[in-house]
This record gives sequence, C-alpha cells and structure tokens, in this order.
Amino acid sequence: MTREAGGRRAIGLDIGGTKVAGAIVADDGTVTAECRRDTPETSDSATMTSLLLEMVDDLRGRDDGVEAIGVGAAGTVEWPAGRIRWAPNNSYRDWNVRAELEKATGLPAVIDNDANVAGLAEARLGEERYDQMILVTVGTGIGTGIVLDGRIYRGPNGLGAEAGHMNVNPDGPQCGCGNYGCLEALASGTALTRMGRSAAAGDPDGMIASLARESGAEVTGQIVTMAAMAGDSTAASLFARLGRALGIGIASLNAIFELEAMVIGGGLVDAGDLLLEPTRRAAREFAYAPTARPIPPILPATYGGDAGKIGAALLALEDAGTL
Amino acid sequence: MTREAGGRRAIGLDIGGTKVAGAIVADDGTVTAECRRDTPETSDSATMTSLLLEMVDDLRGRDDGVEAIGVGAAGTVEWPAGRIRWAPNNSYRDWNVRAELEKATGLPAVIDNDANVAGLAEARLGEERYDQMILVTVGTGIGTGIVLDGRIYRGPNGLGAEAGHMNVNPDGPQCGCGNYGCLEALASGTALTRMGRSAAAGDPDGMIASLARESGAEVTGQIVTMAAMAGDSTAASLFARLGRALGIGIASLNAIFELEAMVIGGGLVDAGDLLLEPTRRAAREFAYAPTARPIPPILPATYGGDAGKIGAALLALEDAGTL
Repeated sequence: MTREAGGRRAIGLDIGGTKVAGAIVADDGTVTAECRRDTPETSDSATMTSLLLEMVDDLRGRDDGVEAIGVGAAGTVEWPAGRIRWAPNNSYRDWNVRAELEKATGLPAVIDNDANVAGLAEARLGEERYDQMILVTVGTGIGTGIVLDGRIYRGPNGLGAEAGHMNVNPDGPQCGCGNYGCLEALASGTALTRMGRSAAAGDPDGMIASLARESGAEVTGQIVTMAAMAGDSTAASLFARLGRALGIGIASLNAIFELEAMVIGGGLVDAGDLLLEPTRRAAREFAYAPTARPIPPILPATYGGDAGKIGAALLALEDAGTL
Repeated sequence: MTREAGGRRAIGLDIGGTKVAGAIVADDGTVTAECRRDTPETSDSATMTSLLLEMVDDLRGRDDGVEAIGVGAAGTVEWPAGRIRWAPNNSYRDWNVRAELEKATGLPAVIDNDANVAGLAEARLGEERYDQMILVTVGTGIGTGIVLDGRIYRGPNGLGAEAGHMNVNPDGPQCGCGNYGCLEALASGTALTRMGRSAAAGDPDGMIASLARESGAEVTGQIVTMAAMAGDSTAASLFARLGRALGIGIASLNAIFELEAMVIGGGLVDAGDLLLEPTRRAAREFAYAPTARPIPPILPATYGGDAGKIGAALLALEDAGTL
C-alpha cells in the first residue's frame, strides 16, 4: 500500500480487555505511527479517559495533521452519541467517550463497537472488497461486525450487531453475559479455556495438562492452541467442537443475511485450519437450502489484531464531525 | 380507514401452502375486492402461473384501474428478478413469476417472499408504524419479514431474511428443510403437530387424543390448539415448549438487530397468550444485556392472514415498474 504525502489521517484507538492499541492511519489504511498500552486493572471511565487522552497526545506529537479520532471499544456503544453503556469484560459503565474526547482534544470523534470498526476495515481494505459481509472476532469473547450495502449495521441506536450472543444451544454453558448457550459461550477463547481445563483435569498426563505445568500456569486457550498445533488429538478435538458451534452460528447468520463472505478474526484464528476446517464443515452441514442459496466462503481476517484501530480511524475519516 | 375515490390500487396475491389469497388493495391498505383459490395439489410452475392469471383476470374484471401486481410466495425468491428458486412446501422450482405475469397481463409486477411482504404491511399499516421490526409468521413453517429503516431487508439477491431456519438447537428435531434444530423445526405448526402426536400416543385417554378421535382425523396443530384453549394442561405445556423456542429465537434476533417490536403472525397466533406468554418469558430470560438494551415488545399481528396480500399490493405500488 502506498500513500500520497498529505493524505487524510485520523487516530484510531482500539480498547480491548487486555490492551489499548492506537495508531495514526491514512485514508487508504496505511498505518503511519503506533502506540500501545495495557488496559488498566481498574478500567473505569475516568481511568480510561485519561489513558486515551495520553495516547492521543503521544500520537499527535508525532503528526500534527490528524483530523479526527475514532475509537472501537468492546461493549454496547450508543451511536452516534458515542456513549458506552456497558461492557461484559470491562468495568466502564455509562462512559460518555465521544463528548470527553472532543472536549479535551478539540478534534471530532466517533465511538463504535470494536467488532463493528474491525468489520469495516476488513470489508473495505481486506483481500477483497465486500459489501455484504460479517466479521466474527473470536477472542476472549465473540464480537461481530456486520457490513450491509458497504456500511456498518448497528441498529437504530448502535445496540445491535451482537451476534456473539445469539443462542446456539439453550442448554449450553453459561456465558460471560449471564445467559446460557450464547455463541460466545461455546465458541470463544473463554470456551476453549473452559474445555481445556476440563480435558486437563480428566487426563493429567496429557499434552494440555503437561504444557500448562511446564508454563507454570493454569490451562488457557493459548495452551490448548499450542497443544493442538503440536499434534495433540485431544486439543484438536476441542477445536473441532468449538469450530462446529461457530459454523452453526455462521450458517444461521447466512440464512438471515445472505452474505458474500464470512471473515474470522480474533486471536483464535491464528490456529488456522484447526479452527477454520470444522467451522466450514458445520457451516455447510447446517446451510439452509444449499441447492438454492450459495454458501459464502469462510476466510481468515486480513488485518488480524490491527483491524480495530484501522477501522476506527477509517470511520473517523468518514463520519467524524458529520453526526 | 377511508380511501379517496381514485386512490392508487394494485392487485396483491399471497401464495401459501394451502390457499392463494388475492385482493385489490388501495395505497392506504384498504381492500376493495377479494378472491381466493385452493393451492392445487400439483403446485408446479405452469399450473401456478395459470391459477395466478385467472385470479388477476377475475380481479381486473371488477376494477379496471389497477396499476400493478404484487405477489408474496413461500420460498427463496430472487429480488428484483422475481424468480422463485425453491420452496420447502411447494413443488414449484425456478419459476420466473415476474416475467410470466408481466408478459401475460401487461402490468408491472413484483414478487417477494410472503413473510417479507406481510412484514411490510405490519410495519407500515399495523397498530403502530415501525421502522425496525421483524414479523415472525408461525404457521406450517416459520417465515420472517425483516424491516430495517422502514424497508424490507432481503439480502443482495433476495435470498436472506430466512430466520425461521436459524439454528436454535443442533441436537433438535429435523426440519422440513432437511436440517436439524431450525427455529421452524421447534416452533412452527409442524412442530406442534409432531409434539401433539407424541403426546397423544403417550396418553390415549387425554384430551388431545380424544379430540382427534372425535374429529375422525390424526392429531394436528389445530387439535392441540383446541385442547389448550379448552384448558388441557398437556396441550398448554406443548405451547409452553414451542413458545420457549420462539422466544429464544426472538432474543437472538434482537441481539443481532436491535428492534422496536417483534410481531407474531401466522395461524398459531390465534392461540393468543397460550403462545405469546411463554414466548415473552423466554425472550426476557435470554435477552442480551437487558440492563443496557431494551427488550422489544412481542405483539400479535394486526392483519393476520391478510397481511400477505396487502403487503404484496403495497410493495407493487411502491416498486413495480421501477426495478
């Protein structure tokens, strides 16, 4: 990718459960500067506002031509007000992010759900351009960025596009949101950790338990991924279960939307075909009317963990100051 | 409702599994003429085209001022081409409805999925006007009409909006579409028939079995509904199971879309609170983030079985001749 000198630029910030990623991004998606902080243990609104303002100052110190700020954040974000009502894995509540950033920086700002902005980046700047696509981010939780007719679908107040909390089995395990059997409860990194701990308890001599002991820590999704990539059949079977749930959810989303592609992002997609192969198999098995309706390709994300900050900046360049 | 003499009028036709309903409808939703035929046992494309043309001739004979024809049909309908690719409960396949009607009648025509056009009628002309609403028709199958920003959502080629085939339990019973555990497999009239037959087999002296014997026929969803309305606790428990599945599906749809209302139509809504009460309870139980996101009201349809032909005519008045 190349960028003309003087191309429009915005700051993109992506607030996750463990880190906040920031960048200056040009309108063609080029990242020209970056910074990164750990998400504080106490992720309340005041602490988080200070952290974001520090990052904005840092980035503006390296480029005085940024026009706007875009933020992607986990949780339910009112659009276009830019107030985060609630987040399952962060402690901020009723955080008026947009107003606080605009007041302190003098720049126009947009705030949206993290998966929404990542979906925008993948749809616009991924391997292919898609007008009708869903990005499913499979990390600690499951976020979905729904792009219809080339634009982010959010619902009338920004509270929609939470397909990670569609129910895929009402008798399934409890989700971080409190419900039982959400897609997130069955197909996220948290689900992989839960299944890995259960497998390690049942087979203390197995590879999952052994890798955890060697690392001196509890079993996590990362440990299960390492075991699966090293050829452990138990770990691979957990990915098969997880991918099956994900594929069933994807089949439902394609029945509802009719999509050109489903893109899978988030940390777990690093497992590659261990995740994607069972996902694709289940999406085919549960496809509605496959003789009459195409089954969209299921593809790994182009930008991985960078999609959030890039999409947030893109959205800022499109919409900030116009809402 | 009143209509000015000379208001714009179109023919609306609604093709169901058992009957084809037709009407002349004015742009304010007033029905000025009606006709109705049984769906032939052999519902292939040629037979169905002849039937629709007879009905159009009949209706035009009563009003020579109709401008356009709208058709709602069960199945996957290409939009805007108006070709029906496939339907789970009718034998027409690759039926080029729009082209055949336009050629034979000289009128512009639109063809859309039956639940889509019914959803349009409910959103525009129901008790309240909604811009963000889903109509779920609970009949032999489950159809969904998704209205976003005041317009029918169909997917790019008209093959979306099939939320009746979202999966609500991968270990659930087989659906008419061939998959297992679709919402339709658990919450439709067909599901009620299946559950009723099982209940009658297990309790031949119970009210469900007795009512079927008295009527000289097998147990159907209608028999179960009669038993439930007469106070039979077994029949009521089947409605509770069915409503629970429906409410879980509705909770998922609200997580995905953020809706102002969910409207329930189709034959089973005649059971009233027997269906709606357990549906509402499950939609609350499985609502995502209910402290941060409103739970939309779940309401019975205003137009019932008339919504399809009215919505088809409304759509014709809006879009026919412009596609």
